[in-house]
Amino acid sequence: MTSPRRATAQAHPNIALIKYWGNRDDYWRLPANDSLSFNLAGLWTRTTVVFDPAAEADRLILHGQEVRGSALQRVQRVLDAVRARAGLAWRAQVTSENNFPMAAGIASSASAFAALAVAAAAAAGLALDEAGLSRLARLGSGSAARSVPGGYVVWRAGAHDADSFAYTFLPAAHWALADCIAVVSTQAKAVGSTHGHALAHTSPLQAARVADTPRRLALAQDALLRRDFEQLAWVVELDTHLMHAVMQTSQPPLLYWQAASLTVMHAVRAWRAQGRAVAYTLDAGPNVHVLCPEDEAQAVARDLAALPGVREVRIATVGGPARRLD
Amino acid sequence: MTSPRRATAQAHPNIALIKYWGNRDDYWRLPANDSLSFNLAGLWTRTTVVFDPAAEADRLILHGQEVRGSALQRVQRVLDAVRARAGLAWRAQVTSENNFPMAAGIASSASAFAALAVAAAAAAGLALDEAGLSRLARLGSGSAARSVPGGYVVWRAGAHDADSFAYTFLPAAHWALADCIAVVSTQAKAVGSTHGHALAHTSPLQAARVADTPRRLALAQDALLRRDFEQLAWVVELDTHLMHAVMQTSQPPLLYWQAASLTVMHAVRAWRAQGRAVAYTLDAGPNVHVLCPEDEAQAVARDLAALPGVREVRIATVGGPARRLD
Repeated sequence: MTSPRRATAQAHPNIALIKYWGNRDDYWRLPANDSLSFNLAGLWTRTTVVFDPAAEADRLILHGQEVRGSALQRVQRVLDAVRARAGLAWRAQVTSENNFPMAAGIASSASAFAALAVAAAAAAGLALDEAGLSRLARLGSGSAARSVPGGYVVWRAGAHDADSFAYTFLPAAHWALADCIAVVSTQAKAVGSTHGHALAHTSPLQAARVADTPRRLALAQDALLRRDFEQLAWVVELDTHLMHAVMQTSQPPLLYWQAASLTVMHAVRAWRAQGRAVAYTLDAGPNVHVLCPEDEAQAVARDLAALPGVREVRIATVGGPARRLD
Repeated sequence: MTSPRRATAQAHPNIALIKYWGNRDDYWRLPANDSLSFNLAGLWTRTTVVFDPAAEADRLILHGQEVRGSALQRVQRVLDAVRARAGLAWRAQVTSENNFPMAAGIASSASAFAALAVAAAAAAGLALDEAGLSRLARLGSGSAARSVPGGYVVWRAGAHDADSFAYTFLPAAHWALADCIAVVSTQAKAVGSTHGHALAHTSPLQAARVADTPRRLALAQDALLRRDFEQLAWVVELDTHLMHAVMQTSQPPLLYWQAASLTVMHAVRAWRAQGRAVAYTLDAGPNVHVLCPEDEAQAVARDLAALPGVREVRIATVGGPARRLD
């Protein structure tokens, strides 16, 4: 009998500028459309995977608490893929923690499955390249594919498991943006993203949103390349409203916004009308991500914190890739 | 020289259950899609038209104040159509008042132009049937076409001026519903409906919304016929979110909701989940119209008034047609 194999990895959540919502294939988590994001430096999930010949079952420990059910099953999907590839039969213990609240509009599943993919592959001795790790992370959570590379990241939807992965489109140093996250609720959301994605096709608007995505992605990539904040703001806010339009018109409808979300959105619009470089975007939750140049983040965060209903503001800059820590 | 010709008429605003948003023809105000509404009894515009051989110009007096510019031009569009048809050259004085706040999500232009059409036609001695009055009102404001007939009203989009008018689909007595209007703002909106309609085509979602309308209209008509509140609630809220999706994704985007609008929407959803017959809809403004059976309106209004951000609640039952008063 050999010793357990262990690895620890860290990954950041990411904020999408062009959103992923809805799958063309739920089993493989092949998305309906391309998306674009950057990782959030300073926020992280750290995950240790131990493949243990003595273990009788896979176990998942989040923040010191054992978790079973669908969360464990999603983790096992990634572990199984690694075991199949590595020719390994050992069960694993997965220990994970985040330094930010889960399930409240900061995509904890993205950082969680990116960290899991990197740690599990390393523990199993698999030498996967970045694309391979991105594909592996995608099996647990679609947006986790984007938390594997660093900087500004594009995830091409692809048509198969083999060609659906994310890559760095521009390095973080290209443009020093920040995400000021206005936290308006720390409650777990009523409908998680995995279930929400499966509802996207019930909206009369999803097909139109998907069909328009190549245009928006091109506009967003162009805005990033030229560092054109005004164009970026316009297309990012449009894209957010398109995704929430689909959510709000799906069956059953998903209304993730809270009153305070709208307070922040209106404030951001008013500030931009006054000439400030700010733009908002919301994931599948009520918190509002306010993008701005990094050197204005402190001032933006201070003004956001003064709005009614805003509980706290976290600032994240453009982050690096998922990486092994040990 | 003969004497001035005078007539006074009254019309109600209406609340759309299936919304009108966007025109296939802006000049004739031919809508992009069919719509369905009921008039709001208790809220009214009263308008007097005096065609006067001694008058040198058309004048518009709203709440005792003379109004010029685009509002007068829209009134003149209706007056000109009446004069052309009646062979009359006299200028007119139009005096009008509402018993509810203008431009804040209660469609004042609908009641205003319905009352104007009835008063102007009567003053000019034109014997128009209801369809003719509905067409005439439409020239000033599309949704005014729906304030001419009484009860539950359908406006078929039509393809020409001649076939685009509203008619009573079911009498008011068929189902005693009420609209509890949660007023969250009495400010005039930043972008009026006429300008908003002209932006609808800039949204990537408008074509999908329009294409899906026959389905929603059929579902809403079926729900009304069978007095099925649950089905009505579902399709009315879906339709509202579809319209606001188009507004929020047009260029420039129109974000009519305020924080308190969302507070009311969430409350209505929670109440319905508890078994209460309530459903929300919003026009081009922040106020929330909460539909319920008439005999529950007092209780619903009381609960709405207790929500943060709700300034007042007005109750309207299903109203009758526009009519001459003198």
